[in-house]
Amino acid sequence: MMDFDFIRELNKHEDTKIILLVMDGLGGLPIQPGGPTELEQARTPNFDDLARHGLCGLHVPVRPGITPGSGPSHLGLFGYDPLRYQVGRGVLSALGIDFDLRNSDVAARGNFCSIDENGLVTDRRAGRIPTEKNRELCALLRNIELPGVELFVETVKEHRIVLVLRGEDLEADIADTDPEEVGAKPLEPEALTTESRKTADLVKNFLEQAGTILAGHHPANMLLLRGFAKKPDWPSFEQIYGLRAAAIAGYPMYRGVAKLVGMEALQAVDGVEREFQVVRDRWRDFDFFYVHVKHTDSAGEDGDFERKVSLIEEVDRQIPSLIELDPDVLIVTGDHSTPALLKHHSWHPVPTLLWSKHCRQDNVEQFGERACMQGGLGPRFPATDLLPLAMANALRLEKFGA
Amino acid sequence: MMDFDFIRELNKHEDTKIILLVMDGLGGLPIQPGGPTELEQARTPNFDDLARHGLCGLHVPVRPGITPGSGPSHLGLFGYDPLRYQVGRGVLSALGIDFDLRNSDVAARGNFCSIDENGLVTDRRAGRIPTEKNRELCALLRNIELPGVELFVETVKEHRIVLVLRGEDLEADIADTDPEEVGAKPLEPEALTTESRKTADLVKNFLEQAGTILAGHHPANMLLLRGFAKKPDWPSFEQIYGLRAAAIAGYPMYRGVAKLVGMEALQAVDGVEREFQVVRDRWRDFDFFYVHVKHTDSAGEDGDFERKVSLIEEVDRQIPSLIELDPDVLIVTGDHSTPALLKHHSWHPVPTLLWSKHCRQDNVEQFGERACMQGGLGPRFPATDLLPLAMANALRLEKFGA
Repeated sequence: MMDFDFIRELNKHEDTKIILLVMDGLGGLPIQPGGPTELEQARTPNFDDLARHGLCGLHVPVRPGITPGSGPSHLGLFGYDPLRYQVGRGVLSALGIDFDLRNSDVAARGNFCSIDENGLVTDRRAGRIPTEKNRELCALLRNIELPGVELFVETVKEHRIVLVLRGEDLEADIADTDPEEVGAKPLEPEALTTESRKTADLVKNFLEQAGTILAGHHPANMLLLRGFAKKPDWPSFEQIYGLRAAAIAGYPMYRGVAKLVGMEALQAVDGVEREFQVVRDRWRDFDFFYVHVKHTDSAGEDGDFERKVSLIEEVDRQIPSLIELDPDVLIVTGDHSTPALLKHHSWHPVPTLLWSKHCRQDNVEQFGERACMQGGLGPRFPATDLLPLAMANALRLEKFGA
Repeated sequence: MMDFDFIRELNKHEDTKIILLVMDGLGGLPIQPGGPTELEQARTPNFDDLARHGLCGLHVPVRPGITPGSGPSHLGLFGYDPLRYQVGRGVLSALGIDFDLRNSDVAARGNFCSIDENGLVTDRRAGRIPTEKNRELCALLRNIELPGVELFVETVKEHRIVLVLRGEDLEADIADTDPEEVGAKPLEPEALTTESRKTADLVKNFLEQAGTILAGHHPANMLLLRGFAKKPDWPSFEQIYGLRAAAIAGYPMYRGVAKLVGMEALQAVDGVEREFQVVRDRWRDFDFFYVHVKHTDSAGEDGDFERKVSLIEEVDRQIPSLIELDPDVLIVTGDHSTPALLKHHSWHPVPTLLWSKHCRQDNVEQFGERACMQGGLGPRFPATDLLPLAMANALRLEKFGA
């Protein structure tokens, strides 16, 4: 990981543009030993062409052997060492729904859940109630009053909400109330530090009132909270790299992590073609475009090898519309691996291609896991190397020393 | 970067010899996409033979994406992490002309320059006056007297000089006076810390007197100063590695950085053949020979692809005279890349070959950028790994632990 002060001193303005295209969970595994991975099976003439003229490798998102969540893995891609830059999910969720979070706020993610007459959780997701129902219940919960703090209860989607407390001396070292299993009672919002006791008491008060309000609304008759967090005070993308950066991402989590590093989250749209259209529409306004493709990961998590293959192929088909923009640097990668074989995120290094006019191409002729192992970026490079390399290839870094 | 205390404890005496041959700016880029780099185009039967029997790879001089100056990149090759070991150019220049710099001295580089009647710089290099004229002017400047300090004004070459102040309580946190553009006035030697105020006042006094003395000597009618620095107190090459080390380098900058780490800078000669002859002449006297070839970098900076190719070929032709010495370890690399395509230093990893009897050869058959990507040293290893590897291959490191 590079020291941000160091790179901040070296960055200079050039009229060059960088695209970072992230296919979520891109890395895969063969279903049969010796067979192709999802990416290797996919017909990707455009990626292969970029690979032939670019530089390939596989990045390690966090540390060797570590399976990352999407928050840490994205921070790594943005150049922020995920072990040093940690943030609670509550903050990411709040930012993801464009909530204007302040540094002193405490945010948590919430799930509506179902409990039985003994108070035991029977469904941690309340049967995934419709978003509209979620909105109605949030409106009721906003009637809750807590002494000395302002309260925000915000719908995310289906059973998911964000809770934000705003006031003085609030701290977020509070244990999750989600027992993470059915048949157990919701946990107490336990204060993990002395400084967090006041806030934990307020949360407890909130949950008691919420329980009363929701009592008649089965299946959504209770609330589970987790990921209590405050917004960290990190150097922004623009401060570090001098880049005006835009995020094109539909899902709240990814919008959140992008906003946390100071990117502007553009209009959320569905589908790769429309996402790329947003890049085209806003091409003049930014230096750096982070484009997130979600569904590759979902297919992996569903164990659907073929669907992941065809989603990768769909992204490949849209690539010419990015190439036409004539970017100076184009990086194609994933945030982590999600092999359909495993049905979850994994620790495997992630295929990466970097194309620029000045990248010094290697001998890789195909964009795939095994081909990338022979590439000039190496078979296991830290994800945090990518942004400095993008900056160099965009000719946006001064020489260090004489 | 390896901790020096660690390697110091492990080093042991063996009667083995190491040669580190550095072709400045060796790494390159193809002129046409898909074409050969300078090194790939060069016919280098001797390097290729060493590559076949050795171990190849590409080193990252400072950090991924960072374009280094020659000072930092050489420190990396010598095993000193360039981010931790930083030194001002004044010190390197003073050491480079064999000035006997003391730890309390403050040194700066100087350029004679031309100013017009309004005091605006018209030529930052005073038309590159002849070295002989430089000597005459330095003799005049030595008449300047400053209260309480001794003053040294030393010719480097053409328009370049070194200024050294010797006295008590001198500090070097002083801004450059070179405005770095024509049409501007020379800047004040501004003190950047309270401790440096006294020294900055002395420098200001010096420059005022220099202006008066030089007034009638257009085009060299003023002086610009930069790179104020004191000699850092670093562990020496001999202390860390137990190596008696010699530097064969003609240019002041490289002699300076070698002396800074405690190498003995041998007689400066012109041309690779004569440099290698110095190695032969002094073969018995040292354990480690750093040999610097400058012109490859100059050709790259001139954008002269073919000249860089032929200079590389010329070095290759001389290699048998080093092989005949039967070195235990021979490393051939560059300090950084200077692709003729870019006409300046770049961030690209640098081709490296390490040959020794014990190196465990890889499958690389040619010394070139793409071939090195497949080598056993890897496509992107830190430059600071090289010295410990050289030590190991010279059987000069004890086992760590039992």
